[in-house]
Amino acid sequence: MRVQGKDYRTVWSDHSKGLVHIIDQRRLPWCFSIENLATVDATATAIRDMHVRGAGCIGVLAGYGMWLATREAQGRTEELHALAKTLIETRPTARNLAWAVERQLATITGRPPEDWESTSLASAESIADEDALWCEKIGQHGLPIIESIHDENPNAEPVQILTHCNAGWLAFADWGSATAPIYAAHRSGIPVHVWVDETRPRNQGARLTAWELQNEGVPHTVIVDNAAGHLMQHGEVDIVLTGTDRTTGKGDVANKIGTYHKALAAADNEIPFYVALPSSTFDWTCEDSLHEIPIEERDAAEIAYMEGKTRTGAVEEIRVVNPDSPILNPAFDVTPARLITGLITERGICDADQASINELFPVGSRS
Amino acid sequence: MRVQGKDYRTVWSDHSKGLVHIIDQRRLPWCFSIENLATVDATATAIRDMHVRGAGCIGVLAGYGMWLATREAQGRTEELHALAKTLIETRPTARNLAWAVERQLATITGRPPEDWESTSLASAESIADEDALWCEKIGQHGLPIIESIHDENPNAEPVQILTHCNAGWLAFADWGSATAPIYAAHRSGIPVHVWVDETRPRNQGARLTAWELQNEGVPHTVIVDNAAGHLMQHGEVDIVLTGTDRTTGKGDVANKIGTYHKALAAADNEIPFYVALPSSTFDWTCEDSLHEIPIEERDAAEIAYMEGKTRTGAVEEIRVVNPDSPILNPAFDVTPARLITGLITERGICDADQASINELFPVGSRS
Repeated sequence: MRVQGKDYRTVWSDHSKGLVHIIDQRRLPWCFSIENLATVDATATAIRDMHVRGAGCIGVLAGYGMWLATREAQGRTEELHALAKTLIETRPTARNLAWAVERQLATITGRPPEDWESTSLASAESIADEDALWCEKIGQHGLPIIESIHDENPNAEPVQILTHCNAGWLAFADWGSATAPIYAAHRSGIPVHVWVDETRPRNQGARLTAWELQNEGVPHTVIVDNAAGHLMQHGEVDIVLTGTDRTTGKGDVANKIGTYHKALAAADNEIPFYVALPSSTFDWTCEDSLHEIPIEERDAAEIAYMEGKTRTGAVEEIRVVNPDSPILNPAFDVTPARLITGLITERGICDADQASINELFPVGSRS
Repeated sequence: MRVQGKDYRTVWSDHSKGLVHIIDQRRLPWCFSIENLATVDATATAIRDMHVRGAGCIGVLAGYGMWLATREAQGRTEELHALAKTLIETRPTARNLAWAVERQLATITGRPPEDWESTSLASAESIADEDALWCEKIGQHGLPIIESIHDENPNAEPVQILTHCNAGWLAFADWGSATAPIYAAHRSGIPVHVWVDETRPRNQGARLTAWELQNEGVPHTVIVDNAAGHLMQHGEVDIVLTGTDRTTGKGDVANKIGTYHKALAAADNEIPFYVALPSSTFDWTCEDSLHEIPIEERDAAEIAYMEGKTRTGAVEEIRVVNPDSPILNPAFDVTPARLITGLITERGICDADQASINELFPVGSRS
């Protein structure tokens, strides 16, 4: 997608230099900067400390991280597995991370060590290309939903879409999941307007999604997370589109904390609530989403402090919570399938239930 | 309530000097400071720019503001009404504001001008005393609810209470509405723990409620607004207690934006959701809460910028939203009565429906 008019992906490689490049999302929207990663350790830090974030994007980076791992392991299988473990352990909730690392291990294992590097690089490129392609397909499958809302609107007013967090292209290699249908609609001339949840903590909506939409020229308005229900009560939202970090085979969705609130408000106001996902976010083994999906608890400092730009233009961090109060920071919540209108995947749309998901993704056809 | 061990109210007068004193809530929790108001204009600014906020507190201050108005009007009825209008127009949603001003006008009107000042001061003191007394009674009526949750808890663990925004003593003359039962429980030795919603924008939870609870020694933890549903899903919340800025005779509640989300999450998890209120927040004339209650839209800067303490100890404001993105800032939402377990008032507890409310507050007995 475009940054200041130029096309970018979030992660890409320079194999001649043995480097992986990422857009450093920590500094957005104040500063657009590229970081170069040369080691598994640096890659793990970039994932753990959220230089990049978002289900697809950390999967793609983990794929490239395994390429760097083959360079470091130099043919030692045990070393390769240890580096794989380092990558997997950086973030516990997102499914794509482990999926990409395991896919790389399966690809590499059994090959002669001299092929590891080229094989893993080709595989990393495939994971990135697939991620981008799948997101593009999500856009194509989601587009008719927005189109039909627009067709039913007699006044040709913009379709009002609410989204939470950043399931935009910054969260993937390209296009995004929740944003893909929005970008597809915008590019095909359907008027859209996006309500962007600020998305505390870390403010991925106010910082990243808003920045993305602005760079693509998509009309949008930032609101606090608390405001979604109010807008829905007043008919200001036609559809909710979010992403997911982990999706169970029953259609439950673990996504950025607060997603569950939006789904409840959408259900209460009979507004369609769609979750967009590449199938790499499926966790086919999870039976009980509320108790089996590990919910990452992140540092209290993410809530206690906020980073932004001072009036003089410096980027500064300030404390925004009463100094001596304890803080708890769960990063995800689980939205039960019953609140979800449908799942938009790279293969098409299905209901958020086991039968529909199995029909679209029969055992044996899963990636 | 206590600040650093000393008892305070939020608003009080010094009639010898013709001054009204307020705790300047804009500077909390970083700095505890008292502001002196000498004119209606300064009082209106203090309400409009939220030096004080909270339904009861702005009602109490408006009461004292009318005392200052009698000093300025000097017997001119027209002038008095103009000053009353200035006060009423500062904030559109909270009911107590207009209620206090109208009560003062009714008290003053018909009296000889030379009595205006003493009458209005006595009346302002009454409004403040009643506000404090009513909140104390809300505490007494709400206490048994917390007590019974504690009695049913076999492990004698703390009762887990979630609250939104600041319906604490800072929002009234004293005690608070939602916090009154909490303070009553804490003082009577029942172990409680409060989940404090950060409460964007303005962060009244993270800044004010957390500060209040800390000063009273009540165990608490700050969370982002997005986290409430997740905690409820995992059995970490026994009861939700919030305040209200305006309550209809049918039991609908206009309160700080985001209250509706909490009520939905509580209902979905079968957790009792109580709203605590002095009856001065009732708007007996409202028939259709969603369409008749004016929802204040405040300045986008409240969302775009956040104020806090830098690492060097200075209080600084930083921009936290993508620079060129539009922002919408509705300050309240309406929680429908069907999501509310009960209303805790100074007269006792009733269901959130017209019949129960009328039984507790028969026409003719309303203040």
